Amino acid sequence: APRHMSADEFDTIRDLFAPLAQSAGARGLNDDVAVLEATSALVVTSDAIVEGVHFLPDDPIEAVAKKALRVNISDLVAKGARCTGVLVTLIWPERRPSAEIAGFARGLGEDLQFYGAQLLGGDTTATPGPLTVSVTAFGVPLGPRVPARADAQVGDQLWVTGEIGDACLGLMSLTEAPAVLGAAPADQVDAFASLVRARYRLPAPPVAFAPAIARFARASCDVSDGLLADAGNIARASGVSVRIDAEAIPLSAPGHAYVAARGDEGLLRLVSAGDDYQALFTAAPEDRGRILEAARAADVTVSLIGDIEGGSGVRLEGKAGEIAIGTAGHRH
Amino acid sequence: APRHMSADEFDTIRDLFAPLAQSAGARGLNDDVAVLEATSALVVTSDAIVEGVHFLPDDPIEAVAKKALRVNISDLVAKGARCTGVLVTLIWPERRPSAEIAGFARGLGEDLQFYGAQLLGGDTTATPGPLTVSVTAFGVPLGPRVPARADAQVGDQLWVTGEIGDACLGLMSLTEAPAVLGAAPADQVDAFASLVRARYRLPAPPVAFAPAIARFARASCDVSDGLLADAGNIARASGVSVRIDAEAIPLSAPGHAYVAARGDEGLLRLVSAGDDYQALFTAAPEDRGRILEAARAADVTVSLIGDIEGGSGVRLEGKAGEIAIGTAGHRH
Repeated sequence: APRHMSADEFDTIRDLFAPLAQSAGARGLNDDVAVLEATSALVVTSDAIVEGVHFLPDDPIEAVAKKALRVNISDLVAKGARCTGVLVTLIWPERRPSAEIAGFARGLGEDLQFYGAQLLGGDTTATPGPLTVSVTAFGVPLGPRVPARADAQVGDQLWVTGEIGDACLGLMSLTEAPAVLGAAPADQVDAFASLVRARYRLPAPPVAFAPAIARFARASCDVSDGLLADAGNIARASGVSVRIDAEAIPLSAPGHAYVAARGDEGLLRLVSAGDDYQALFTAAPEDRGRILEAARAADVTVSLIGDIEGGSGVRLEGKAGEIAIGTAGHRH
Repeated sequence: APRHMSADEFDTIRDLFAPLAQSAGARGLNDDVAVLEATSALVVTSDAIVEGVHFLPDDPIEAVAKKALRVNISDLVAKGARCTGVLVTLIWPERRPSAEIAGFARGLGEDLQFYGAQLLGGDTTATPGPLTVSVTAFGVPLGPRVPARADAQVGDQLWVTGEIGDACLGLMSLTEAPAVLGAAPADQVDAFASLVRARYRLPAPPVAFAPAIARFARASCDVSDGLLADAGNIARASGVSVRIDAEAIPLSAPGHAYVAARGDEGLLRLVSAGDDYQALFTAAPEDRGRILEAARAADVTVSLIGDIEGGSGVRLEGKAGEIAIGTAGHRH
């Protein structure tokens, strides 16, 4: 649906993206459809990011392209699937220089190569509004089943990959409160700021761990709406309650410094923000050793942060007893 | 990627859309992914529509939902495929009442039922900008091959379904030039206005003719960028030239009245505008009779409007010789 773009501009855009579309089914981006020769189940997901909502207007355009891709890859990884291809719909502001589209294509190309996925097609159109990127990602399941949110069982253990809360700190440090890292040791403020800003701009879903998720996960989803909210989704969908051990939640050094300065209120903020793009999954206790071994082999951090009980809702347990989470366990 | 939506709002949205998602793979819209059990090739397409670009801010919200779906179904129909499911990403303006989302879901549901397709999933997010709807549609091919733009052969005949130019007249009558229908007989101005506005708001891709396209079409695409531009796409992709007989281009009564008043300049406008969402295809001359018969059986209008020759580009031939088309044969 191209509009307000000249023929030259449109051809330029196609020339930029065509090298990313090497599979036969993509038809060189020279057609209106792509053709997928599906041989088994396909896992599909669609997520959009919007300038001023999911990324900042001055985020590097290469990072915007990568974030649009990675928030979708995150969904596939959490389902134990490997991304094979994407459709990318680029909704480009009339006032943003179209020359930047080359940077978008470059960033997208780097990431597609990194993840071993193909561009299959998509759409380019103009908008009077903010830059918006809508991606549909296709994946192949790496195991016999695709774990749902609804598959948790009472007695399961709750695991999360990576570290939680850095994207929240990164966004805060870029916008509302540059002093958010003030609790950091003076000689580490810059390093902390770099770390958390990079994690906000460039989520790193644990792709190397996707085969282990396919093998061991009962319920699984990614952490995109905040740890408590996503745990709440598992609880609701599975008809169980989720108990989270606050002390076990994996934090980075900036995260630890933030919580040391702010206490429970600081922790609640980190586990209520989104954008972590880690995998949150439940598994049988007897798989604990094999999960840790798979994580070591994949060079991915996993943390055992709680367990699945009867009832409903999410409980967060600190050293001094339960931490009231209010509405933080809901999507926000 | 929900943001700036309360838990209640989000649950309300899911409740509105969940009844449209009856297939097992959609998981009741209660998961982050959908699972497609593909048994054959899948045809996929992704097109977005943007308020103020592809539809008007005061278009009825039910019609916006249907248009977002139909512009994608149009791509599938032109490839001889039947739409089976869609992912819908709804990017909702912060300032538009969220109560209207019920109307969107109603319109979407009516159309999904009409086309026999399932909602498979998608995303809902807020935007500070215009309402934007990004749809990915999945289809199954109705024949052994999926005709590309690139499949035209010299000697083929060129066909188009339906009528061309009404969406353009509809948009003009709604915006820039209410007097555009002034050439109409006085007692028909209102009827003409209703017809062309409805065609702008609610494209009607020729779904009943998709099996015939799968059977007879060599090259095929939909008319979304304008008849000349899309014919130009076939010419370029196939390495041929397209000759179009201006007198054979199917026009509605309002289209005829417009061209009668404006002459070649009026015709050029109608064949350069987009939004027709008809199918444009080439076929072997020996299939002419069977194509006409299939159209009658499907109750779809088809018109033989030209043929495929050697060379490159698009030629438009009128009664008095060739009509210069300038850059109208390019995407705009």
